[in-house]
Amino acid sequence: MELLAAAIAIGLGALGAGIGNGMIVSKTVEGISRQPELRGTLQTTMFIGVGIVEVVPIIGVVLAFLMFFQA
Amino acid sequence: MELLAAAIAIGLGALGAGIGNGMIVSKTVEGISRQPELRGTLQTTMFIGVGIVEVVPIIGVVLAFLMFFQA
Amino acid sequence: MELLAAAIAIGLGALGAGIGNGMIVSKTVEGISRQPELRGTLQTTMFIGVGIVEVVPIIGVVLAFLMFFQA
Amino acid sequence: MELLAAAIAIGLGALGAGIGNGMIVSKTVEGISRQPELRGTLQTTMFIGVGIVEVVPIIGVVLAFLMFFQA
Amino acid sequence: MELLAAAIAIGLGALGAGIGNGMIVSKTVEGISRQPELRGTLQTTMFIGVGIVEVVPIIGVVLAFLMFFQA
Amino acid sequence: MELLAAAIAIGLGALGAGIGNGMIVSKTVEGISRQPELRGTLQTTMFIGVGIVEVVPIIGVVLAFLMFFQA
Amino acid sequence: MELLAAAIAIGLGALGAGIGNGMIVSKTVEGISRQPELRGTLQTTMFIGVGIVEVVPIIGVVLAFLMFFQA
Amino acid sequence: MELLAAAIAIGLGALGAGIGNGMIVSKTVEGISRQPELRGTLQTTMFIGVGIVEVVPIIGVVLAFLMFFQA
Amino acid sequence: MELLAAAIAIGLGALGAGIGNGMIVSKTVEGISRQPELRGTLQTTMFIGVGIVEVVPIIGVVLAFLMFFQA
Amino acid sequence: MELLAAAIAIGLGALGAGIGNGMIVSKTVEGISRQPELRGTLQTTMFIGVGIVEVVPIIGVVLAFLMFFQA
Amino acid sequence: MELLAAAIAIGLGALGAGIGNGMIVSKTVEGISRQPELRGTLQTTMFIGVGIVEVVPIIGVVLAFLMFFQA
Amino acid sequence: MELLAAAIAIGLGALGAGIGNGMIVSKTVEGISRQPELRGTLQTTMFIGVGIVEVVPIIGVVLAFLMFFQA
Amino acid sequence: MELLAAAIAIGLGALGAGIGNGMIVSKTVEGISRQPELRGTLQTTMFIGVGIVEVVPIIGVVLAFLMFFQA
Amino acid sequence: MELLAAAIAIGLGALGAGIGNGMIVSKTVEGISRQPELRGTLQTTMFIGVGIVEVVPIIGVVLAFLMFFQA
Repeated sequence: MELLAAAIAIGLGALGAGIGNGMIVSKTVEGISRQPELRGTLQTTMFIGVGIVEVVPIIGVVLAFLMFFQA
Repeated sequence: MELLAAAIAIGLGALGAGIGNGMIVSKTVEGISRQPELRGTLQTTMFIGVGIVEVVPIIGVVLAFLMFFQA
Repeated sequence: MELLAAAIAIGLGALGAGIGNGMIVSKTVEGISRQPELRGTLQTTMFIGVGIVEVVPIIGVVLAFLMFFQA
Repeated sequence: MELLAAAIAIGLGALGAGIGNGMIVSKTVEGISRQPELRGTLQTTMFIGVGIVEVVPIIGVVLAFLMFFQA
Repeated sequence: MELLAAAIAIGLGALGAGIGNGMIVSKTVEGISRQPELRGTLQTTMFIGVGIVEVVPIIGVVLAFLMFFQA
Repeated sequence: MELLAAAIAIGLGALGAGIGNGMIVSKTVEGISRQPELRGTLQTTMFIGVGIVEVVPIIGVVLAFLMFFQA
Repeated sequence: MELLAAAIAIGLGALGAGIGNGMIVSKTVEGISRQPELRGTLQTTMFIGVGIVEVVPIIGVVLAFLMFFQA
Repeated sequence: MELLAAAIAIGLGALGAGIGNGMIVSKTVEGISRQPELRGTLQTTMFIGVGIVEVVPIIGVVLAFLMFFQA
Repeated sequence: MELLAAAIAIGLGALGAGIGNGMIVSKTVEGISRQPELRGTLQTTMFIGVGIVEVVPIIGVVLAFLMFFQA
Repeated sequence: MELLAAAIAIGLGALGAGIGNGMIVSKTVEGISRQPELRGTLQTTMFIGVGIVEVVPIIGVVLAFLMFFQA
Repeated sequence: MELLAAAIAIGLGALGAGIGNGMIVSKTVEGISRQPELRGTLQTTMFIGVGIVEVVPIIGVVLAFLMFFQA
Repeated sequence: MELLAAAIAIGLGALGAGIGNGMIVSKTVEGISRQPELRGTLQTTMFIGVGIVEVVPIIGVVLAFLMFFQA
Repeated sequence: MELLAAAIAIGLGALGAGIGNGMIVSKTVEGISRQPELRGTLQTTMFIGVGIVEVVPIIGVVLAFLMFFQA
Repeated sequence: MELLAAAIAIGLGALGAGIGNGMIVSKTVEGISRQPELRGTLQTTMFIGVGIVEVVPIIGVVLAFLMFFQA
């Protein structure tokens, strides 16, 4: 049961991170192709955004490894 | 059962945070690429928004760790 | 069973808060990038909105902690 | 079983309140950014709307607490 | 089993009321921001609509309380 | 089992009534904000529509109460 | 089991009737607000349509009552 | 089990008939509001369409009654 | 189990036929309201289409009756 | 179990055929209403398409009958 | 269990083939109605596409028959 | 259990291949109908794309046959 | 259980690869049909993209074969 | 159970990576076809994005192999 829990935690985390980062980075690419001179600003905002989005999945990864080594 | 509960809590939290932050940050990037001079205001609003969105998932993370160390 | 219940309560709460706040804050960011001089009004409305949206998930968080410490 | 029932009641309530309030408040923010002079009217309508939307979830919260203390 | 039934009744009712009222009130807010002079008419129609939408969820709430006190 | 059946009947009925009435009333509000002089006609049509939509959920409510008092 | 069957029959019927009638009546309201002089024709078509849509849910209601009184 | 089968048959049939007829009649209403002089032709096509859509649900209703009286 | 199988066959068939025929007939009605002089051609194509769509559900109906009389 | 398998095979086949043929025939009707002189070409392409779409459901029907007579 | 496996293989194959071929053929019909002189090229591409899409479902059909005759 | 696994592998593979190839080929047909002189280039890209999409489903087919002959 | 796990791994991998590659290649085909002179650049980007998308499904394929030969 | 967990982890990871990378790379291809001179910048942003998206699925892959060799 520990491994199933780890798999669910990391699987849903990957799904959430994929959807969230996919929206952010694709909009950033679209924004840069319209306004190339804003590249720095947009990438900075993108990095902040993906960092915030990754917080919970990364902790889920850590928790999954903890569950794995406890099993 | 404790670990499965922790995995569900952190997994759904990652999904919710991914969807919510993805919408907020992608709209912010879109807004900055249109109105670069409003970067500060938009980023401030974005930080408030992602902070509010992250409240419940982060508490879910804390609860998941509590569940993990109780197991 | 108590921990599973706590995980479901906090997980669905995070999902609901993510969707609701994501819609509100992203629209606010879009509104500010169009009408920067309305920043105060829009942010006030946004704070009221996210406050109302967060009510039920936060109570769900409280209930989840109560369930956790009872388990 | 009582706690699972409480979690489902509060979880679905949070989801419903998040979707409903998210639609109402985001439209209000959009409306204010178009017609700033209608701020009072729109916010009044918004308060009525979120109040009505919150009725059933709040009762669900009350019921969940009743279920919790009975368990 | 009684409490689970009460939770499902109130949870689905909250979801249905959230979707229905969310659509009605958000359209009303949009309508008022376009035609402010029609505020009274639109709000009257909105009140009729949310009243009708709330009928079944409110009865579900009543039924859920009946189920709760029978349990 | 009787109570679970009652909850499913009233819950799905609330969901169906919410979606159906939400579409009807929101379109009516939109129509009145465009053509205020047609208010009477549109509201009459709306009342007929929500009456028809409510038929099956209301019978479901009656059936749910019958199930409840039989349990 | 009889009551669960009755609840599923009446619940899915309410959902189907809600979606179908919601589409028909909302389009009729939209059509009347564009062409007020066609009110009679559009309402006639609407009545035929909602009558046809209601056939199967109403029979489902009848069947659900038959199931209820047999239980 | 017979009654559950009858409920599934009539429930899914009501859902299918609701979606199918909803699309057909709403498009017909839209078509008549654009071209009122084609009312006869459009209604004829609509009757043929809803007749064809109703074939399988009606047979499902018949089958459900057969299942009911066999139970 | 035979009756449940018959119900699933006829239920999914009704759903498939409803979606397929709904798309075909609604597009035909839309086409006739644009080009009334093509009524014959469009209706012929529509009849061919709904005939093809109905093939598998009708066979499912036949199979369901065979299952019913075997039960 | 044989009959349940037959019902799933024919039910999913009907769903797939309904979606596929619905898209093809509705686009053909739309195409003919725009370019009536291409009726022959479009119908030929449509017949090829629906023939290809029907291959797998029809084999599923055959398989379902084989399963039925083996049961 | 063999027959259930065969039904799932052929059912999901029919669903996948229906969605894939439906998209391809409907776009081809749309393309021919715009550019009738490209009929040959578009149909050739369509045949290649539906051939590729049908590969996996047809093998699923073969596998389902193998499963059926082994049962 | 081996056959059920084979059916799931080939069924989900067919679904994935249908969605992926359907998007690719339908866009290629649309592109050729706009720019007929690019037929060769677009078809080359299409072949590369459908080849890449088919990799995993084809391996799933191979694996399903291996599972079948082991059963 | 090993084979079911292998089937789930390769099935979800095929679904993910189909969706991801379908989006990438279809956009590349659309881009080439607009800007034929950028064929090389777009195809290079496409190859990088599909390579990255295929990483996880291919490893899933490898893992599925490892699971198969262990069973 | 270990292998099922590994399959869920790698399967959901492939799904998440496919959706996320599909959105990012397809927007990049669209951006390059509009602004070819920004190829370097857009590809750099794309590489950062797909790298971030791949983090969680790749760790899921590692975890799945660890689970596999422990089984």
